[in-house]
Amino acid sequence: MQVDLNCDMGESYGPYTIGNDQGMMQYISSANIACGWHGGDPVVMDRTVKIAVERDVAVGAHPSLPDLMGFGRRAMTCSAEEVENYVLYQLGALWAFAKAHKTEVRHFKQHGAWGNMVQRDLELARALCKGVARFSKEIIIVSSVGSHMAGAAEELGLKSAINMATDRAYDASGKIVPRRQPGSVIHDPRNIVERAVQMVRDGTVQAITGETVKVRVDTIAVHGDNPAALQATIDLVEAFKAAGIKIRPLAEFL
Amino acid sequence: MQVDLNCDMGESYGPYTIGNDQGMMQYISSANIACGWHGGDPVVMDRTVKIAVERDVAVGAHPSLPDLMGFGRRAMTCSAEEVENYVLYQLGALWAFAKAHKTEVRHFKQHGAWGNMVQRDLELARALCKGVARFSKEIIIVSSVGSHMAGAAEELGLKSAINMATDRAYDASGKIVPRRQPGSVIHDPRNIVERAVQMVRDGTVQAITGETVKVRVDTIAVHGDNPAALQATIDLVEAFKAAGIKIRPLAEFL
Amino acid sequence: MQVDLNCDMGESYGPYTIGNDQGMMQYISSANIACGWHGGDPVVMDRTVKIAVERDVAVGAHPSLPDLMGFGRRAMTCSAEEVENYVLYQLGALWAFAKAHKTEVRHFKQHGAWGNMVQRDLELARALCKGVARFSKEIIIVSSVGSHMAGAAEELGLKSAINMATDRAYDASGKIVPRRQPGSVIHDPRNIVERAVQMVRDGTVQAITGETVKVRVDTIAVHGDNPAALQATIDLVEAFKAAGIKIRPLAEFL
Amino acid sequence: MQVDLNCDMGESYGPYTIGNDQGMMQYISSANIACGWHGGDPVVMDRTVKIAVERDVAVGAHPSLPDLMGFGRRAMTCSAEEVENYVLYQLGALWAFAKAHKTEVRHFKQHGAWGNMVQRDLELARALCKGVARFSKEIIIVSSVGSHMAGAAEELGLKSAINMATDRAYDASGKIVPRRQPGSVIHDPRNIVERAVQMVRDGTVQAITGETVKVRVDTIAVHGDNPAALQATIDLVEAFKAAGIKIRPLAEFL
Repeated sequence: MQVDLNCDMGESYGPYTIGNDQGMMQYISSANIACGWHGGDPVVMDRTVKIAVERDVAVGAHPSLPDLMGFGRRAMTCSAEEVENYVLYQLGALWAFAKAHKTEVRHFKQHGAWGNMVQRDLELARALCKGVARFSKEIIIVSSVGSHMAGAAEELGLKSAINMATDRAYDASGKIVPRRQPGSVIHDPRNIVERAVQMVRDGTVQAITGETVKVRVDTIAVHGDNPAALQATIDLVEAFKAAGIKIRPLAEFL
Repeated sequence: MQVDLNCDMGESYGPYTIGNDQGMMQYISSANIACGWHGGDPVVMDRTVKIAVERDVAVGAHPSLPDLMGFGRRAMTCSAEEVENYVLYQLGALWAFAKAHKTEVRHFKQHGAWGNMVQRDLELARALCKGVARFSKEIIIVSSVGSHMAGAAEELGLKSAINMATDRAYDASGKIVPRRQPGSVIHDPRNIVERAVQMVRDGTVQAITGETVKVRVDTIAVHGDNPAALQATIDLVEAFKAAGIKIRPLAEFL
Repeated sequence: MQVDLNCDMGESYGPYTIGNDQGMMQYISSANIACGWHGGDPVVMDRTVKIAVERDVAVGAHPSLPDLMGFGRRAMTCSAEEVENYVLYQLGALWAFAKAHKTEVRHFKQHGAWGNMVQRDLELARALCKGVARFSKEIIIVSSVGSHMAGAAEELGLKSAINMATDRAYDASGKIVPRRQPGSVIHDPRNIVERAVQMVRDGTVQAITGETVKVRVDTIAVHGDNPAALQATIDLVEAFKAAGIKIRPLAEFL
Repeated sequence: MQVDLNCDMGESYGPYTIGNDQGMMQYISSANIACGWHGGDPVVMDRTVKIAVERDVAVGAHPSLPDLMGFGRRAMTCSAEEVENYVLYQLGALWAFAKAHKTEVRHFKQHGAWGNMVQRDLELARALCKGVARFSKEIIIVSSVGSHMAGAAEELGLKSAINMATDRAYDASGKIVPRRQPGSVIHDPRNIVERAVQMVRDGTVQAITGETVKVRVDTIAVHGDNPAALQATIDLVEAFKAAGIKIRPLAEFL
């Protein structure tokens, strides 16, 4: 029994500090590292890769649309050629720091607006994956349930990992329940931890309508931006330990 | 008898076109490709690397200070840590396009203000070279006579190549004559071509005071931004051919 | 009989030159001046306002989404608060140069993707107009037929001017024919000039289905990015002169 | 007896929060508001001007070199034409928000590296002041002791105000003691407050060599980036109240 824990990292920029990279790096197995376009200048990237390597955390790319002011959270209609090359540029930039610290870029998780856009835009998912595939076929695409990324990755011969949201409800078909629906977000921290353990241990989740649904989970996204989020991560890690679930980077078991 | 011809390339940006990349790529052996910080967005980088590979031109990095508005031509007091990581970032970004086109980054030539700053600033030269060395010890540092780059490169175990300005006067010790001095710039195109041939064939140049001075030349920078510059390049290439001088990328003879 | 001629201006940036500002400024009555976000750095803005004033051309703001790399041509989902303040920021920046050259900002024409987005997005049109209204109610909104800008301007007590495309077909209701439809773009330069004269002189245009349709035209956008466009502008200006139509800035007759 | 208290404000950017604008705005009389180039996007500028107006705090411009990544703290060799127009651009942008909130831009204090550079660079000070003068001769230049700004302001007919550092030692001629000298920085909070009161009430300061030296102080810079700084500001405000010193914006007494 094993799962990966991933967290967005290295999103500070120049004088601006965001997140709790040092704190979170103790608990996770995969760091999604910003590549300078929504956060993360080169000095921040170097330091983030360094602490990831020190903690044996897998380095992954977390590239963004070119929108520092909007933190990459605003949808933008770029062409496929643009997207593909934006991915290449940012992957290469991060890879240089990985190489300088004697490691590799292991996975890819698109940031912000791209994350939402690939839920419905297959062409965008293909462009993102093509950027990755042109760089290396060894990089694992981290994909949410229902996203077009897994399909696009498969078309190009890339491995993909399923990222599960442990604080969201799922329907009887295993699809995530939209936020606008009542009960779509789980707020009770204990419940979230229990659901996470069940997902990994049993490969199932209780649907919003009560059924036990089969799910696949390779990695779980955690957060550290506030003390509550950090505590939730610590609780999750302890519950996994108690349940005999090992936290390991994706490349070790995919 | 051989020499490398290098030219700055890929400095267009978004809707803005600059230079004559397609034209010049026919004559040179090394392209110094902008990495996005003074010019060269990812789409431009991809296209520039593609045409370099098609023409068998060696791909090199031409990184800059973070100053798109000033085209990287304005001196800026960055820390050594910043400079080193700015180099890593840009080298990696370019390397991704090189890898996507099945080639490597072969050489490194710093852009704009950095080019002038390393004439007198050893610490900056060390920071630039350290960024390169952390990336790869196979990348050749292109260095002008009198620059601190060659020394800094040697300290770190990097190879360096001497770039000669064929339109500038040299003094009896082989140093470049400062621009403010009369006669420091050679304007006659025929004279420039003859001096270039003599530099490569004989390893000498006529000093401004008349003496024949020994010089080393590995590469010569050419330009294509205007029809006269393009013609000068064509004339140079023909003079080299007539003199039996081969134009080859640095890695083939250094 | 009178009409305004407007042209996008001051879109050069740093070392990058675009357009033919000096040439076009002789023929137009209103300059839509870039405000630094898709083109036009402060030095360019200063020079552009200066030549506008020298030629008695009205200074207008041509603000953009924050997307220099994409020249403001890519749709981006900004909030109303963001759009409104992006307009204020850019209007103020341009106004400073206007003030330094003893003139005012007379009109407002949104750039690039915003121009298409306001065709269907009333909330965006409202946010743009609110930014203008918070700055000054004296600024005229330049609006295309079918855009939500005119309505949004009216709601806020702003004057608006109708910009007609002289190279596009209109349907029997006076609406512009979409580009994907055959015959939607007029290519014959003579025909374009004749239609422009008819629009201004008679207030009518021949619909794609043959009917004579009433139209309002306050201003016509012209271009100078290539010799053919410049010649088309000159032809238009001469045809207007021959027809007794005066070319005057919007504020003089609206 | 009166003095102005000024503080840098509005330096947050996009998702990044910095400083304690709401807290500090209660104590100061002048806000130096970032104009987007080292911090402060348009939404932040709008909100900062709004709370300044609500608190009756004078709005001032705090423009910067174009260096978001370095927070405007890195010296950069711009031409006089560039500097002058960078000032105009940023002043205008801030003025738009001031106008939208029914106020004016009252003062000008250059940010970061510019602040140090004008200590020794008269040409730069002239370029900065010329940018202000082209905008408005009513804007007060905030100038430190020993800076070239006061002289440059006077040449152009601009008013200037002297900003005193209350935590720095002065020599017998009233010049600030360089940081590298022992005793140049006062650390004891009580001592700082006493010196501030003496400066304003008596127009004198105790030199590092013991003499009582005459000084002029129009405004004092305070900080709020950490709880200690906020407390120091509160202590200063209370000491001024106890001493009968009124805190008023510059324009009310200069």
